Amino acid sequence: MKKFMGKNFLLKSEVAKVLYHNYAAKLPIIDYHCHVPSKDIAENCKYENITQLWLGGDHYKWRAMRFCGVDEECITGSASDYEKFKAWCVCMPKLIGNPLYHWSHLELQRYFDYHGIINADTCDEIWALANEKLADDSMSVRNLIKNSNVEVLCTTDDPADTLEYHKQLAEDDSFGVKVYPAFRPDKAMNCERRGFRDYIAKLGEASGISIVTIDDLKAALASRIAFFNELGCCTADHGFDDYVSYLVSTQGLDAAAIFEKALRTDGNEITANELSVYKTELMIFLGKLYKDHNWVMQIHFGVLRNANSEMFKKLGPDSGFDTISGVNCTMSLARLLNRLNSENALPRTVLYSINPTDNTALGALTGCFAKNDGSGLPYIQHGSAWWFNDNKIGMENQMTALANASAFGNFIGMLTDSRSFISYPRHEYFRRILCNLIGEWVENGEYPDDIDALADIVMDICYNNTKKFFGF
Amino acid sequence: MKKFMGKNFLLKSEVAKVLYHNYAAKLPIIDYHCHVPSKDIAENCKYENITQLWLGGDHYKWRAMRFCGVDEECITGSASDYEKFKAWCVCMPKLIGNPLYHWSHLELQRYFDYHGIINADTCDEIWALANEKLADDSMSVRNLIKNSNVEVLCTTDDPADTLEYHKQLAEDDSFGVKVYPAFRPDKAMNCERRGFRDYIAKLGEASGISIVTIDDLKAALASRIAFFNELGCCTADHGFDDYVSYLVSTQGLDAAAIFEKALRTDGNEITANELSVYKTELMIFLGKLYKDHNWVMQIHFGVLRNANSEMFKKLGPDSGFDTISGVNCTMSLARLLNRLNSENALPRTVLYSINPTDNTALGALTGCFAKNDGSGLPYIQHGSAWWFNDNKIGMENQMTALANASAFGNFIGMLTDSRSFISYPRHEYFRRILCNLIGEWVENGEYPDDIDALADIVMDICYNNTKKFFGF
Amino acid sequence: MKKFMGKNFLLKSEVAKVLYHNYAAKLPIIDYHCHVPSKDIAENCKYENITQLWLGGDHYKWRAMRFCGVDEECITGSASDYEKFKAWCVCMPKLIGNPLYHWSHLELQRYFDYHGIINADTCDEIWALANEKLADDSMSVRNLIKNSNVEVLCTTDDPADTLEYHKQLAEDDSFGVKVYPAFRPDKAMNCERRGFRDYIAKLGEASGISIVTIDDLKAALASRIAFFNELGCCTADHGFDDYVSYLVSTQGLDAAAIFEKALRTDGNEITANELSVYKTELMIFLGKLYKDHNWVMQIHFGVLRNANSEMFKKLGPDSGFDTISGVNCTMSLARLLNRLNSENALPRTVLYSINPTDNTALGALTGCFAKNDGSGLPYIQHGSAWWFNDNKIGMENQMTALANASAFGNFIGMLTDSRSFISYPRHEYFRRILCNLIGEWVENGEYPDDIDALADIVMDICYNNTKKFFGF
Repeated sequence: MKKFMGKNFLLKSEVAKVLYHNYAAKLPIIDYHCHVPSKDIAENCKYENITQLWLGGDHYKWRAMRFCGVDEECITGSASDYEKFKAWCVCMPKLIGNPLYHWSHLELQRYFDYHGIINADTCDEIWALANEKLADDSMSVRNLIKNSNVEVLCTTDDPADTLEYHKQLAEDDSFGVKVYPAFRPDKAMNCERRGFRDYIAKLGEASGISIVTIDDLKAALASRIAFFNELGCCTADHGFDDYVSYLVSTQGLDAAAIFEKALRTDGNEITANELSVYKTELMIFLGKLYKDHNWVMQIHFGVLRNANSEMFKKLGPDSGFDTISGVNCTMSLARLLNRLNSENALPRTVLYSINPTDNTALGALTGCFAKNDGSGLPYIQHGSAWWFNDNKIGMENQMTALANASAFGNFIGMLTDSRSFISYPRHEYFRRILCNLIGEWVENGEYPDDIDALADIVMDICYNNTKKFFGF
Repeated sequence: MKKFMGKNFLLKSEVAKVLYHNYAAKLPIIDYHCHVPSKDIAENCKYENITQLWLGGDHYKWRAMRFCGVDEECITGSASDYEKFKAWCVCMPKLIGNPLYHWSHLELQRYFDYHGIINADTCDEIWALANEKLADDSMSVRNLIKNSNVEVLCTTDDPADTLEYHKQLAEDDSFGVKVYPAFRPDKAMNCERRGFRDYIAKLGEASGISIVTIDDLKAALASRIAFFNELGCCTADHGFDDYVSYLVSTQGLDAAAIFEKALRTDGNEITANELSVYKTELMIFLGKLYKDHNWVMQIHFGVLRNANSEMFKKLGPDSGFDTISGVNCTMSLARLLNRLNSENALPRTVLYSINPTDNTALGALTGCFAKNDGSGLPYIQHGSAWWFNDNKIGMENQMTALANASAFGNFIGMLTDSRSFISYPRHEYFRRILCNLIGEWVENGEYPDDIDALADIVMDICYNNTKKFFGF
Repeated sequence: MKKFMGKNFLLKSEVAKVLYHNYAAKLPIIDYHCHVPSKDIAENCKYENITQLWLGGDHYKWRAMRFCGVDEECITGSASDYEKFKAWCVCMPKLIGNPLYHWSHLELQRYFDYHGIINADTCDEIWALANEKLADDSMSVRNLIKNSNVEVLCTTDDPADTLEYHKQLAEDDSFGVKVYPAFRPDKAMNCERRGFRDYIAKLGEASGISIVTIDDLKAALASRIAFFNELGCCTADHGFDDYVSYLVSTQGLDAAAIFEKALRTDGNEITANELSVYKTELMIFLGKLYKDHNWVMQIHFGVLRNANSEMFKKLGPDSGFDTISGVNCTMSLARLLNRLNSENALPRTVLYSINPTDNTALGALTGCFAKNDGSGLPYIQHGSAWWFNDNKIGMENQMTALANASAFGNFIGMLTDSRSFISYPRHEYFRRILCNLIGEWVENGEYPDDIDALADIVMDICYNNTKKFFGF
């Protein structure tokens, strides 16, 4: 029996151990997609207690607590930080088989040097230990990032964002880690939502362009892209909620008129077809700009957001009430990529599906747009297992599907998608799973036992490919 | 090499063996969903031969025989019971990798103490042995149930059912096992089917209410729910055939008018939209009642029934010609749950999909409606691997998905879904697979090797959670 | 650690080794579905170099090269054969976990007795060795086929094909292997495509029937079926692109009129509903004929072809730009099979989905039409893992799903789907995976360790069932 989460956690074969400890573990992290606030980095925050750091904004943990029948009071409510932490510790033993169980223990091991087991009995000793350590300067946000061996970090930002903290960070020599914004224009895309009018006004302000027509909107977006680009941005993120709704024809509809209607009605009367026509028009416009700027476009799709409208009213978005739509959109996505490609508007792209049943189809789809762009990598990447799939089985399945369909050695590997500054052990988790998978192939005689060649593959997937693909 | 289906069948690690033999194996069975006839229990039937018990109504086995090219004569036709049993034995060796192979051997081991291998050569000795044993009183229906360590058993019943055998059983002190009805109002929901008018008439008779309007129907259903409740019923079952067709808006349609049209036309002219509006209206009505009665609502969805219409004409429903529709309905289901929740009409619920590709999505969906109801369990459960997935891989996949998405320790575990009184070893099968899965996690260092904590998890999943969730 | 692709490659247990080496390895190959040209067999071609043999028409390899950023010039362009081979070798190490890695090494081992590792360093020695061997008569097309132990080979042919090479082969006693055509009428089915008019003219010419009405078309197809049948054809292949679009009702549309419209407009104005009505009509017509001729109907579905229209313009179809549509069509397919069955037009059938998420649903569906046709086999088969799934995991998943749903001992096993005369080691690959899967079940105590019974199952799946099912 292996020691619980010991040195060789998840590493079964000797090859896996060598690959992980001698190569993967030592590599820097390129955190090209996360949800941490640039403000906290700029201001180099510190946390009073582990609840603020761990449970403050992590809706993964909130969900798990609700599955254990914890009262909302102790999750997002007004209970004390200690009560919330206690509630979390009480839940932990029930989370057998859940990645949160592993992440939580890894985080305590790596950042707090705590090697015990989290449960009701150990709650108090962890609370005391963690909070004591958090008071130390070594646990400031910047030190957490640095000590996690992060080389680059890309936050997720709205086009209307002033990026003030990014400006501060760009001007500040004292922090060695590069922090860049990433461009996430979902609010400009979703013209069917309440609040669209206000958002467009805000974007107009940020860009200094009064937005009345779709051409104004395009000019404003172009201006923001240039601004983001100046601050080091090299990637755009798109969240295609519910489903990708790309139409083969515009059905006589005109994107300019749809935009004006959306502004007029604040999104209230936009039909599904109108939305598709509008989104397609914008995607082509943005795709061209991304390509011109040599940015990578990331597409996250398949999510049904705010599935519980009562809780949405109470807590707003990103509170743990999103789910998997289940609507298959690979054909629609294929058509969109084809359209972009035909219009010379397809930048390097990463596709992430929230539904693991898309794994094989995505492997096949990426091959349809692979081509020589000088990088030696696939032009379109099947992104790392994401959100509900960001676990051992999910990662193994994504990587196995990718290896079967594609050239695994060219995979760009793990993204953190984190909401906390101590979630970098997710990279460790990924790297262990990766090394174990490769080790298993070698053990089975499915790949030669050539440690140099294997190390190259591991280092490429953990670090080199990402650097090359995004152009860091 | 492990002994064929020996003591440690399916149990690889030492942890798994301890968990199974010392804890799981000893627990009573709560059979909260099955298809056995209450009449046979009330009358304490005995069976003349193993064909009557085994092949009389088990369309799983009929399917397997058709896959082996057995003539229908020897499956559902007029061949003798011996010929049918012989045909079954001849097929057995071909069923390598099929759960029927394991269930059949387990059933012979547990109920007939037969430890040989079923095939053409052993057919006659099994036939003789089994039939001799079946003559013994220890093999009466009630003794089979008792000796299987069943504590509670819920049959599946139509609202129009008189429940006469349930009344008999409720009044009979001699049988220690609790037998309750479960409420399955599919026929009242499916207003687009031929025979709807007759069914409504029958329901009117059973409830003593003349059903002319939808309000009459609601009153009749409410009256039957009260009646079922008196007899200990604590769960309703819904079979959402083909797909869940929940609409966001009623599109100007009125459920009351649709019901009257359905009565008038005997379902002949009901459109898909009308059906959705009618069903949604009823679901909200029923959901509220279930919630008021503290019942659990079970939803089984994704089945395409009677896919072979020629065989349907010959043999009727439930003869082994159902299949998986493949239509993804998680988004529609999400909307229905949200609607019920918004109307305060969402009872504790269990979701079962016939399509294993829904596993990850269901894990995510249940989290959107988890909340504190005082039980400490998820308000919505992702139900056990069902029907075409009720096998080793199917169960492992469902449990792994559930563990990744949810709090595995709060899972309500196995349902039998049985059509025979000797199918209780399916619980043994499930429990072995469960203990093996947990044992594997512990062996790999993914969970602490704390046998008490592990035993609690196993006992909760096998017994305690179910008892608590259903309120037995 | 196992030797890299050594004698016991993929065979973990002793049982697996015995089953593979003593039984599976020795069996002839029935190659009932492939894409090799009959011309090359008739003319007994030889190849100048390994690029012509390996990279000439294999879009699997082209895809892999694009994933490695190889320039199209070195894939399908005008680079020299040596440059193309070099480019392929350079890519190889990146293909860890990809079946091409295994196939390529197996092919070098079996046909060229080369046991090294393919990469940039060994490129030149392989190039020299392979080309020297290819000059030998033992490496002619016919000798490659014979030495691969192929017993029967079915090419894929259009109804308008003259089958001239098949005629030559039928008259030629010198080649011991039976070579038959297979009937693939996709172009007659796809009446919505540009070029339909020309195709129908060509079919008219081939059949000697002037095709003006749908009855003419039917007569022409019937005449070609009779002609194919004379040359030993015993199977038809259908590629249902994008999705199966079967309608419940004809919606007042008339197939005869649709056909005439398609001829008139050259497919330009055919709506989705019209296409469905037309296709259904033809499927019923063809199904009856196949059944009368005792042919097997193969249906390959779920592909989205030519997803990259820019590359389609440059390279045409079958160049590695097809993908998985992701549209679920199991319900539509179920309805089509039911319609055929109701019209007495359902021949023995094999269903292949390009999407592995259909595995469980297909296992269930085949059971709805299983029946006694005297063969002892399922009337409808769930076909071998296909195309993007033709790899270790894909095969294991398909076989596990099939075993769970059906009678695994009656499976018809592997199809080659090959585009090269040295791709027969794919059968070896399949057989090793099959034996390993069965060996694992036996090791785990899930099936008795009875080597004779196991050998029967293995030999049936690898050879006997196929022979019986197709009637070779």
